Amino acid sequence: MNKQNIRIVLVNTSHPGNIGGVARAMKNMGFDQLVLVEPRQFPAEEAMWRAASASDILEQATVVPSLEEAIADCQLVVGTSARGRRIPWPVLDPRRCAEQMHVAAQRDETVAVVFGREDRGLTNEELQLCNLHLHVPTHEDYTSLNLAMAVQIVVYELRMLAVADTLPAQADAEWDAPFATAENMERYYEHLEQTLAQIGFLDPAAPRQLMSRLRRLYGRVRLDEMELNILRGILTETQKSQAKK
Amino acid sequence: MNKQNIRIVLVNTSHPGNIGGVARAMKNMGFDQLVLVEPRQFPAEEAMWRAASASDILEQATVVPSLEEAIADCQLVVGTSARGRRIPWPVLDPRRCAEQMHVAAQRDETVAVVFGREDRGLTNEELQLCNLHLHVPTHEDYTSLNLAMAVQIVVYELRMLAVADTLPAQADAEWDAPFATAENMERYYEHLEQTLAQIGFLDPAAPRQLMSRLRRLYGRVRLDEMELNILRGILTETQKSQAKK
Repeated sequence: MNKQNIRIVLVNTSHPGNIGGVARAMKNMGFDQLVLVEPRQFPAEEAMWRAASASDILEQATVVPSLEEAIADCQLVVGTSARGRRIPWPVLDPRRCAEQMHVAAQRDETVAVVFGREDRGLTNEELQLCNLHLHVPTHEDYTSLNLAMAVQIVVYELRMLAVADTLPAQADAEWDAPFATAENMERYYEHLEQTLAQIGFLDPAAPRQLMSRLRRLYGRVRLDEMELNILRGILTETQKSQAKK
Repeated sequence: MNKQNIRIVLVNTSHPGNIGGVARAMKNMGFDQLVLVEPRQFPAEEAMWRAASASDILEQATVVPSLEEAIADCQLVVGTSARGRRIPWPVLDPRRCAEQMHVAAQRDETVAVVFGREDRGLTNEELQLCNLHLHVPTHEDYTSLNLAMAVQIVVYELRMLAVADTLPAQADAEWDAPFATAENMERYYEHLEQTLAQIGFLDPAAPRQLMSRLRRLYGRVRLDEMELNILRGILTETQKSQAKK
C-alpha cells in the first residue's frame, strides 16, 4: 500500500489542538496526507504543540475552501458518521472500512477518509458525497468520540493491514533461546521426580496426580533450553544440599 | 464480557490532560475501571476538562502508591511496551492481546492493562510484573504514541470483540427498502434497452457491449425496489417526451 494514496480530510475543525493530535496519530501510523477544509484556526501554535514530532505533517497540510475540492481526485471517499441518517447509506465499522480502503490504495486508487466537526460531525449533504460511511461502534452511554481519537482508530486499522504480514502470530515468536526438545523435557521430568522423592515431597508409593500437574504446567509454558538449564541446576543443588544432611 | 473485569492502570502519568483523555476513551468504549499509580497531579482541572462527559470515570478512579497494589488481585496482567527489551517477554499486537483479555474477562477473571509514563513507558521491573506485553505496531518514523491514544487503541480492540456479533457484515445490512428481485431487474433491463433504442443511443443492429456494461453496473450496486421505481419512472418519462417530438 502506498500511504500517499490515503488522505485524511478534516472538515471545519474548531480546535487547533485536535488538528495537531490528528497529525501525530497519522504519523504514528505512517500516514502524511492531511487536507483541512476551512479550519477555524490554522496554522496555530496549539496544533504544533499537540502534533509533537509530527509538525511536518502540519507544515505540508493543504487548506481548501470546500469538501468537494478536498476529494475531487478521489476514487473512494469514506465519511465518518454517527448512526441513524434519514436515508440509510452503505455503512461499515472501522475494520471492514479499512479493508476496502486498503484494497483500493493497493490498486493505486486515491482514497479519502473524511471527518466532521467536533460537535456535530458531517452534514447529510457532506455524507452524500461519500461512497461509504464509517461508524465507530462506541458504547451507548457516551457516543461522542474526540476527533483525534476517531482518526487514531481509523489510521490504526489501516496500519494493522499494512503490517499484517510482520506481526507475530504467537506471543513467543521472537525469543532469545531455542525451546526445549521433548527428549530434554523427559530428562527434566525424571530429574524432578527423583528430587521430589528425595526431599520427601513425592511419595513414590502414592504419587497421585503430582507429576501430571507439573507436566501440564511446564508443557503449557514451553520452556526454552536456558530456562531448562536453570531449573535442572536448581534440582542438582537441591539434591546436593539434601545429601549433606 | 463483564466490563468491570478489565481495568486500565496508568503508572506515574505526568500530564493530567492525558488522564482525562484516557477516561473519555474508556467511557466511549464502555469501560470504567481506572487505577492511577502515583500520578504527578490528580485530581486536576485539566483532567476533568479533557474527560468531557467521562468525568464520572475520574471521580471513581482509584489512586494507589504502587503498581504491585494496582494489580494485586489481577489474574492476567498486560503491560504496554515498545520493542526491544533485554530479556524478550511474550509480546503481541493490540488485537491478539485483546483476544486474550476478552477470553479471560468472559471467564470472570480480573484483567489489568498497564500503561507507563508519557516519556519512557514502563521500566523493565514493571514489565516483569506482567504476563504478556502489548506492542502497538507504530511506524518506524515516529514510534511515540500519546498515552491516551494508546489506551484508545486497546479499549477500541476490546470493544470490537464485545460488539462483534452486532456489527453489520455488509455495508448494506441496514437498509430501508427491499432489494429488487431478479424478475423486476429483467423488466428494468428490457425497459432500459427499449428506451435507449428509442432515443437512438442503442443501435439494435449493433448493440455491442452496452447492455452487458449496464447489467454489470446495476448488478454490482444491487438496486432496491424504490430505486428501481425511480429509474423506471425516468425511463417512462423519457419515452413520453420522445414520443411528443
